[in-house]
Amino acid sequence: MIQAKTLSGFKDRLPSEALLKRKIINQIIEVFDSFGFTPIETPHLEYADILVKQGSDEIQKELYAFRDHGGRDVALRFDLTVPLARFVSQHKQELDFPFRRYAIGNVFRGERAQKGRYREFTQCDFDLVGSESIASDSEVIQVIIAIMHKLNVGGFCLKINHRGVLNGICEYLGIDKIHAVLRIIDKLDKIGQDGVRQELEGELSEEQVCSLLELITLKEERGERGFLDKVSKLKSYNETLQKSLQELDELYAILEKVGLPKESYCIDFSIARGLGYYTGIVYECVLDLLPSIGSVCSGGRYDNLVQTFAKDKLSGVGASVGLDRLLSALSELGKVEQKSTQTQILCIAMDKEAMPFVYQQAHKLRNSGIGVEVYPEIVRLKKSLTYADRKGHQFALIVGEEEMKCGKVTLKNLKSGEQDTMIDLEICQNKCLGCLDE
Amino acid sequence: MIQAKTLSGFKDRLPSEALLKRKIINQIIEVFDSFGFTPIETPHLEYADILVKQGSDEIQKELYAFRDHGGRDVALRFDLTVPLARFVSQHKQELDFPFRRYAIGNVFRGERAQKGRYREFTQCDFDLVGSESIASDSEVIQVIIAIMHKLNVGGFCLKINHRGVLNGICEYLGIDKIHAVLRIIDKLDKIGQDGVRQELEGELSEEQVCSLLELITLKEERGERGFLDKVSKLKSYNETLQKSLQELDELYAILEKVGLPKESYCIDFSIARGLGYYTGIVYECVLDLLPSIGSVCSGGRYDNLVQTFAKDKLSGVGASVGLDRLLSALSELGKVEQKSTQTQILCIAMDKEAMPFVYQQAHKLRNSGIGVEVYPEIVRLKKSLTYADRKGHQFALIVGEEEMKCGKVTLKNLKSGEQDTMIDLEICQNKCLGCLDE
Repeated sequence: MIQAKTLSGFKDRLPSEALLKRKIINQIIEVFDSFGFTPIETPHLEYADILVKQGSDEIQKELYAFRDHGGRDVALRFDLTVPLARFVSQHKQELDFPFRRYAIGNVFRGERAQKGRYREFTQCDFDLVGSESIASDSEVIQVIIAIMHKLNVGGFCLKINHRGVLNGICEYLGIDKIHAVLRIIDKLDKIGQDGVRQELEGELSEEQVCSLLELITLKEERGERGFLDKVSKLKSYNETLQKSLQELDELYAILEKVGLPKESYCIDFSIARGLGYYTGIVYECVLDLLPSIGSVCSGGRYDNLVQTFAKDKLSGVGASVGLDRLLSALSELGKVEQKSTQTQILCIAMDKEAMPFVYQQAHKLRNSGIGVEVYPEIVRLKKSLTYADRKGHQFALIVGEEEMKCGKVTLKNLKSGEQDTMIDLEICQNKCLGCLDE
Repeated sequence: MIQAKTLSGFKDRLPSEALLKRKIINQIIEVFDSFGFTPIETPHLEYADILVKQGSDEIQKELYAFRDHGGRDVALRFDLTVPLARFVSQHKQELDFPFRRYAIGNVFRGERAQKGRYREFTQCDFDLVGSESIASDSEVIQVIIAIMHKLNVGGFCLKINHRGVLNGICEYLGIDKIHAVLRIIDKLDKIGQDGVRQELEGELSEEQVCSLLELITLKEERGERGFLDKVSKLKSYNETLQKSLQELDELYAILEKVGLPKESYCIDFSIARGLGYYTGIVYECVLDLLPSIGSVCSGGRYDNLVQTFAKDKLSGVGASVGLDRLLSALSELGKVEQKSTQTQILCIAMDKEAMPFVYQQAHKLRNSGIGVEVYPEIVRLKKSLTYADRKGHQFALIVGEEEMKCGKVTLKNLKSGEQDTMIDLEICQNKCLGCLDE
């Protein structure tokens, strides 16, 4: 006998959670579709050196790498971006550029197990590859805002910045350890301004720290506009700041023309996005009701996706939807119905002779567009009704000897307790369809 | 520089193929939903001993097994059935039985690479666990037939048998090497009757071979009924045959009452289903137009799913949809439109100043339910139109200086060549919606 258990850091999804995840993914895909993003699939397993070269040191340690039957060094993917880079390089001739793709799939990281962190989790990425225009940046932002509206998670704010703004500020202040500084700024949400100040003091002069903090804490008030005009004097500091602020101007020209709600996005100079490969406009999205869970969707522009694989440059812009965070947010906000079935009616045969008749009624109901489950055993009515209740059925359709003889059914509304004895299936059908409409 | 390539036996899916796969899966899920089957998810990685004990020798050799960071022996799943057994044992208290679940996910087998066989492929399984009634068998069959109708793959036949019929026949003929014999019978489609006869002669007496072949080649003619009456004399041979044929009677009582098309299923005593764990009614589904690709969906009843993990018995019935075979079947039958976008319109800005206006028009069209892609760069019109054509867009919406000045758009029908210059967006909208309705 073997103990039935999952590996530490891995988890199963039971029906109610899996149904919710499916629903969210379908809503996200509807948005991707409407913007012309198309799905691609890549294998879970890749040559190890394809994954290793691009990953950070930390990721290399967490890689699930092994030698396969053919003696090849292989590894499970740790994200969907490196496989995208490999995919785009490999299939360049078959793809149409600018190339809009999304990918939803599981990735693997052998992190130290901790609450809420899993070693296998689902990523949902979308990218627009092979376009340098700010229009593309605006489009990825529009997609994120459309997704957040669709998911009905309440208010949210997409905080936008430009890597060049941070670079330009550092340049202006004579700071050269830019990467170390960005890493510290990135922790602002977690350790607060005092924490950041303290850590920065280890790297910079007191004066640099003060000026830096003053500049990076500049941000647009929610719902207001005109921030970019207010900070336009920064353009005179250096070319980096000039170029970045002009790109933000260009971005805002599109976003404002499209008419997205003002409160749904704002500029925040403290947004750094830890990942090394972002080079342009970056953003992350925070829920008004649950700011503590951090960003539920983030992304930005990168200069060169395919540098490991090809000499030619291919820039793009992309973002990642934090499915797991959104799932737990929706549960926490009570925005989800915890059902473990998609059907509304449980059909019950009171004796074995009634079973074929019950399946016939179920078949007819399905043909009229009503999802129907049949209880496949003959048990005491109490047992099957308890089952219907637990799974969230709205109706029980019951057939005993009498019903079968007359070609009728009995319909019980499990929410109201109301019961219609010996009615025609058509009447039952209308009652159910009426309830679905409500 | 690293060469961008997939591992041998692994493959990418490009947008048109991934879109088709998504479409098929959604259609199948609609059927699952309507019968009350719910999704579950299990990890791709499991403790190796959970997978190894249940797998056949062959599967053990093909297992992607390795030692993880914590020194655990782990392996990638090779099917979705063993994880289901582990899942059901582990979560028994949280599940409602009879438990209807489906799972769609990738599995891994380090087979020798050959044409059309992949080392990572997608399985689509559904099971009804914890029910011993023939009603459950009938339900899985109803689901398969509903799926095949939905997928619009033309005519098909679900060939049904009962393991007990084969066992009973062997018993009657004094054959005790049942497993070896079933393995040979299972090859009937591949090596034909003469091939099977030859192989059987290595195991059995000439007389046994003759009688066996005579009995197992009994089958119901497509579209006819009454076969079970014709062979009812077999019930007198032994109890095994009696019980199995009675169960087939009971199955047919339901299937006929439901009124499924007669040609969609028939009994064929030669259907063995190779896998060791089937114990009751079994079936496989073959396409009329492409019989050579073999079964596109098959399954049956098993007596004990959880024997590796628990003392208590849990029987059930399940089937597996052959997604990859169906995908290639649909392509081969020309039943699929090879499009690499879900949008109908490509919006094009002729100069940078028009870009915000174009995104505004796109936003309005999306709000009216029309999928829209924006070409995010300023290029020569010929280039963007070629792109639209290759991706399968029906319309191009073009905005230049003149259009922007007047708040109008120009709409070009890429199929007919028709062009409406300087029209209101509403008119454009109606034209597009009109085309979608067609």
